[in-house]
Amino acid sequence: MISVDEARERIVAAFRPLESERVVLKEAAGRMLAADACAKADQPPFSVSMMDGYAVRSADTGARRVIGSAPAGHPFSGAVGPGQALRLFTGSVVPEGADAVLAQEDSRRDGDDVSFSESPRPGKFIRPQGQDFRAGSVLAPQGKLLTPRDLALLAAGDLATVEVRRRPLIAFAATGDELSRPGEPRKPGGITASSVYGLDAMIAQWGALPRDLGILPDRPDAIAALAKEKCDLLVTLGGVSVGDHDLVQSALGPNGFALYFWKIAMRPGRPLIFGRLGATPFLGLPGNPVSTMVCAILFLRPAIAAMLDQKNSVPLRQARLLGALAANDDRQDYLRATYEWRDGLLWARPFPLQDSAMLKIFSQADGLIVRAPGAPPLSDGAPIEILDLN
Amino acid sequence: MISVDEARERIVAAFRPLESERVVLKEAAGRMLAADACAKADQPPFSVSMMDGYAVRSADTGARRVIGSAPAGHPFSGAVGPGQALRLFTGSVVPEGADAVLAQEDSRRDGDDVSFSESPRPGKFIRPQGQDFRAGSVLAPQGKLLTPRDLALLAAGDLATVEVRRRPLIAFAATGDELSRPGEPRKPGGITASSVYGLDAMIAQWGALPRDLGILPDRPDAIAALAKEKCDLLVTLGGVSVGDHDLVQSALGPNGFALYFWKIAMRPGRPLIFGRLGATPFLGLPGNPVSTMVCAILFLRPAIAAMLDQKNSVPLRQARLLGALAANDDRQDYLRATYEWRDGLLWARPFPLQDSAMLKIFSQADGLIVRAPGAPPLSDGAPIEILDLN
Repeated sequence: MISVDEARERIVAAFRPLESERVVLKEAAGRMLAADACAKADQPPFSVSMMDGYAVRSADTGARRVIGSAPAGHPFSGAVGPGQALRLFTGSVVPEGADAVLAQEDSRRDGDDVSFSESPRPGKFIRPQGQDFRAGSVLAPQGKLLTPRDLALLAAGDLATVEVRRRPLIAFAATGDELSRPGEPRKPGGITASSVYGLDAMIAQWGALPRDLGILPDRPDAIAALAKEKCDLLVTLGGVSVGDHDLVQSALGPNGFALYFWKIAMRPGRPLIFGRLGATPFLGLPGNPVSTMVCAILFLRPAIAAMLDQKNSVPLRQARLLGALAANDDRQDYLRATYEWRDGLLWARPFPLQDSAMLKIFSQADGLIVRAPGAPPLSDGAPIEILDLN
Repeated sequence: MISVDEARERIVAAFRPLESERVVLKEAAGRMLAADACAKADQPPFSVSMMDGYAVRSADTGARRVIGSAPAGHPFSGAVGPGQALRLFTGSVVPEGADAVLAQEDSRRDGDDVSFSESPRPGKFIRPQGQDFRAGSVLAPQGKLLTPRDLALLAAGDLATVEVRRRPLIAFAATGDELSRPGEPRKPGGITASSVYGLDAMIAQWGALPRDLGILPDRPDAIAALAKEKCDLLVTLGGVSVGDHDLVQSALGPNGFALYFWKIAMRPGRPLIFGRLGATPFLGLPGNPVSTMVCAILFLRPAIAAMLDQKNSVPLRQARLLGALAANDDRQDYLRATYEWRDGLLWARPFPLQDSAMLKIFSQADGLIVRAPGAPPLSDGAPIEILDLN
């Protein structure tokens, strides 16, 4: 058995960032930037008015003669001379000659003349060219996961497309004679496949493309057929324990399977295989549904992150324990827990029963309390580390 | 001007939960449950073995005669009698007559006989029928946003489809003669439309369907054409201020527009219209891109949430201030800020310049520090409220 950290390090080390592809901005939310996104223009591209009002020369005093009007998108072709003013609106280009804007509400218009109750300071109500950013500056760095706000920023920088990491294709199959799909007639002594539905949605949430290969019976030929699958990572669910019917290793052996390691000192989820099937990385997840998904969070997500060139895919947070915990044994433990916020501090309460087949409390959990092998008993209020599930 | 809270309450009050629709489980991630999802079967559906081993009668002692083998998905048709044992595997149905499982690693097999180094307790290594949940029990309640983990749970409960809230259709248009799309030639004195890209992705992220109606010129006929749009909520960006070229109200007036309110005592984003265009709710967002998106978070998201029957769409969190803040004026303020975690406590540092056109710091921000109208000056370490952006 190896530790969780060693297993994760070895898995992550087996992957390189995938090649990039260019997508239009509308399809870039949630994608990983594969190159710095640099502005093509200053923003604002010219000095603009922050108000509806008048462009003036701050050195002038008294009433000004209004020489025209320039709504946003309709810039004035001339310049504002001494004693002159130009009618402007929010977003209008500040014309040559003017160095301040006076607000409409501080003005009194009388025919072609306008006077003001305020004296202008230079720069007043002007958003200077390049205030937000300059052409050529990095708007979002390589390796950033693009948010909706980033898309707005990149659009402001005149970027119609961006270079993002290709989404890894993750093919997965559940194994087990006992499995059927929900809503289909169950087999005798059978249950419905469950964690495939969680895994499918998790893979998409983590920025990869899921391909559901279905449910495979416990027959070597069915499992061996996986060797033909073209993908970036092949995942099986179940069939990786020590039993006579845990066929994954034996069925794949003659088909180019190379084992890197299996069995991890953790709970839930001890049996886990990592290796290679031909040229394709292979991850065999344990079959108990909570084990499947916890191991996916701990090992599949970092593999996807490595292909996306993404850091920090298993973020831990500090919290305090609600209740007490006994000393831990020699396996790293992940306890399903719910959160409570108290005075800005996060507290977490573990569920009393943690069986690895119990999905209901996994669905209700906010996070997993991480307990190192050999961790001492903890009492109420003890500092703990949490793997966030939300 | 009305307060942020009053505006939000009036907006939310104008919406009712949409009708529901039935979707297959694979398409249910991120959807809102429109009815309690109840299990169709016990989970596990029968008592199962937690180990590879042997089903035995705990009252027996000594060696047992092995009467057969029952892998998962291949239940034994008979019963285990006195002095007998049945070979089982993880997930196998525990046969009639047996009340305990002994692990393979604690057994010694000798032909058809098996002896054990351990004495069984009743129930040992058996996962009892219904341990996770019972048929008919609520797996996920109406109003829950379905996570990947929920999908696994619902699959285990034999649910092939679920009843979810229909996604609201949000149609939106940017207004302004100065706007063009990124990558297209800019107009004289023009800028690229930016917040439409953020809004499009936010609407999808919030569980609704975005429909981008494009960029409308500042012409009454172009804006009036919005009255023909069929959607659950019509949104405009820009054109809602007091200027001669802020046409939204005047252009829509003759087309069945009813104004509920406009102008909100907040920064960024004072000008905001809420009303009705014919039978369609109408939200006019301010045009400065940060104002557009902050107002979308504060008002559009709760409107979508109301249609999805979702609670708590603007979650605030407690934090402490890094740096100092001057007293606030009479507008509720939303300051872009970055996070730091210190000993499990969240600290937030506001950016020094908060101009409502500055997208770069909005992209970099983790949250918005919320300051009530008239809030007193704050010094380093003061408790603050944060609207989370991540």
